Amino acid sequence: MSIREEIIAQARGAKRAAEVLANLSTEMKNQALEAIATELENSMEEILEENRKDLEAGEKAGLSRALLDRLLLNEDRIRSMADGLREIIQLEDPVGDIVEMWKRPNGLMVGKMRVPMGVIGIIYEARPNVTIDAAGLCLKAGNAVILRGGSEAINSNRILARIAAEAIARVGLPAGCIQLVQTTDREAVSVLLGLNEYLDLLIPRGGAGLIRRVINEARVPVIETGTGNCHIFVDEGADLQMALDIVFNAKTSRPGVCNAVETLLVHRAIAPDFLPELYRVLRQNNVELRGCPAVREIIPDINEAVESDWEEEYLDYILAVRVVNNFEDAVSHINTYGTKHSEAIITNDYTRSQRFLREVDAAAVYVNASTRFTDGNQFGLGAEIGISTQKLHARGPMGLNELTTCKFIVYGQGQIRE
Amino acid sequence: MSIREEIIAQARGAKRAAEVLANLSTEMKNQALEAIATELENSMEEILEENRKDLEAGEKAGLSRALLDRLLLNEDRIRSMADGLREIIQLEDPVGDIVEMWKRPNGLMVGKMRVPMGVIGIIYEARPNVTIDAAGLCLKAGNAVILRGGSEAINSNRILARIAAEAIARVGLPAGCIQLVQTTDREAVSVLLGLNEYLDLLIPRGGAGLIRRVINEARVPVIETGTGNCHIFVDEGADLQMALDIVFNAKTSRPGVCNAVETLLVHRAIAPDFLPELYRVLRQNNVELRGCPAVREIIPDINEAVESDWEEEYLDYILAVRVVNNFEDAVSHINTYGTKHSEAIITNDYTRSQRFLREVDAAAVYVNASTRFTDGNQFGLGAEIGISTQKLHARGPMGLNELTTCKFIVYGQGQIRE
Repeated sequence: MSIREEIIAQARGAKRAAEVLANLSTEMKNQALEAIATELENSMEEILEENRKDLEAGEKAGLSRALLDRLLLNEDRIRSMADGLREIIQLEDPVGDIVEMWKRPNGLMVGKMRVPMGVIGIIYEARPNVTIDAAGLCLKAGNAVILRGGSEAINSNRILARIAAEAIARVGLPAGCIQLVQTTDREAVSVLLGLNEYLDLLIPRGGAGLIRRVINEARVPVIETGTGNCHIFVDEGADLQMALDIVFNAKTSRPGVCNAVETLLVHRAIAPDFLPELYRVLRQNNVELRGCPAVREIIPDINEAVESDWEEEYLDYILAVRVVNNFEDAVSHINTYGTKHSEAIITNDYTRSQRFLREVDAAAVYVNASTRFTDGNQFGLGAEIGISTQKLHARGPMGLNELTTCKFIVYGQGQIRE
Repeated sequence: MSIREEIIAQARGAKRAAEVLANLSTEMKNQALEAIATELENSMEEILEENRKDLEAGEKAGLSRALLDRLLLNEDRIRSMADGLREIIQLEDPVGDIVEMWKRPNGLMVGKMRVPMGVIGIIYEARPNVTIDAAGLCLKAGNAVILRGGSEAINSNRILARIAAEAIARVGLPAGCIQLVQTTDREAVSVLLGLNEYLDLLIPRGGAGLIRRVINEARVPVIETGTGNCHIFVDEGADLQMALDIVFNAKTSRPGVCNAVETLLVHRAIAPDFLPELYRVLRQNNVELRGCPAVREIIPDINEAVESDWEEEYLDYILAVRVVNNFEDAVSHINTYGTKHSEAIITNDYTRSQRFLREVDAAAVYVNASTRFTDGNQFGLGAEIGISTQKLHARGPMGLNELTTCKFIVYGQGQIRE
């Protein structure tokens, strides 16, 4: 079989499985999730052995230490995959909910019923835990999933996907519910991107290169998950201690993630008070500042920020800092350079807080809180499948609801249209 | 300027206009809509003159009478465009609504605010009234729109778009809110499809060829609006008079539209009672029946339905008819051949009515009503921009809400993430 034929065969299986899944009881789906969790815990040895192959190949290929760490599985990490599935069991099943229903003048009852998407493709990079997380979320929302992981993790992904498929088969679900693309050939991605006859949705999770390729090639509807060039604007009259705590948290609590702050905007009126203290605290924590000329007048011994600094998602202990003359300049900077992910204002001004929420164009806009909260769990959606930075269908963290769609249901008593 | 440069210039203008539009009051938007309506009524002569050019060119090019009729504008049709805008004025402005809001354990208030999409592209065929309808709906939902109409209607579209742009400029809105692609060159469509940097959404409205091209080429997120191969299943024990009325309505009230019924499925147990009466009524109204062998045993003098009949959207006075053994076979036929548009069951069985709503995979599923109700107005959404047959973002008739998206807004009191 060619790669294309192989993937189409999987897609057909997924479509058949999706029909079964769409009408499965919550109880059955939860049993399947528990079966996977149990089986993961019972297969530690086997998983670690396969993971070791990936790690050895990765070392030989000279992967960075950070990448190797993302690849690594250990007993704790496997246990936390199983725990993740049990958290999904606890989440409410969205399928079948009637979101709203109303009566028309002719007596027709028109409602919207939440139903699964159908077949979802996930294309992701290094981390093997995504195999289990994504499969669990798709399953709970009643979708069949086709997983395509990074080639570095192929052995780990294969064993994880096999364990999941066998576990759900044992409780009576079709094996087509959870499938992994077995080849590491890049052609497989192109095939997936063209399968609009079978796939209802494709979610790419990974670096900018992957996302771009998916957007350029895909015929299947895609949800773009994206990079976060996030900003915090410290307004005139802000509580400066609060501002300091929030900036410190948003920059240093986990610099490598998409909701970390990358550029700080400071109102001119408070810059002389705020910036020296900020510099002192961040320097102690090895954060490099890069400033505009006005910032460097106040803190002379930092490097100058150039145009590209306003555009860059550092994902590192670096923070670009700019002094702005007023609220409008701050919003304009954010709407120009931001990637529409997460943006925050620290302020005590009522009008400007409201304007910021309205006028800044991003998936999540904050008043007086850290951008680091942009996350399915933190927002209370439960686990997340990714953070959408596009506007269609879902914006921001996507949980179970975002893996469903609504159909119109209509109860009549013989109505015909005039 | 090349076509590409010209369209990018329009897209830039649209993006700037969208920023203004996003924060415009409902009152201003309604004033703009009223200004367009008034200006249309004041420009009858001019519009009719431009429309005449299209009609003459169309006649020369040998367009069918049906197509020429779709092209035709007259005073009534212009007035009904203006009335359509006034109906949009009456619709509630969805922008700024807080759809839901909840408190997290750490005190963060997390909510979802409805906001415009941004810039929307509409690619459509012959009918010039779409120019005004689509512009009006996009405007009310706070979006800038770039319109690309069919070449047959170019003179009509140009004058309509110019009137709209001038009218809104007069009440102070940026002209970039409503723009028409001026060239009829097909390259313009390719350019639009690639503008994911500027366009947030693209909606194609037209035949299968246009839709396919858009899906194959687009990098911009697309909502597929589609063809309707709609079914009615007359179940055992159905009220046969109700079934007859509904089938007659769904087939003959407007056969050329996507929510008309194309295939009728009849339960074996009632076929001998129902089919002769159906045949009598439909034959009187010049509807051609094509039947499976079991149908032809009961009505011998109709043609046999071949495989392609189950797949075809006739958009004509033709109805394919099949006898099915049971409910499951009916659902399976629909899920195999349907285009996921509108599907109905006529039944008096409680369990099967509920199962039909759950198990049939379509944008709108009905019990005991005509499929012809799948329409934004009929469902009570107000005017519609199209009927989505995909699952992402919106399914079925799309009104103002579907031209918006939600962003997360977060009110904090200094929260940082652990």
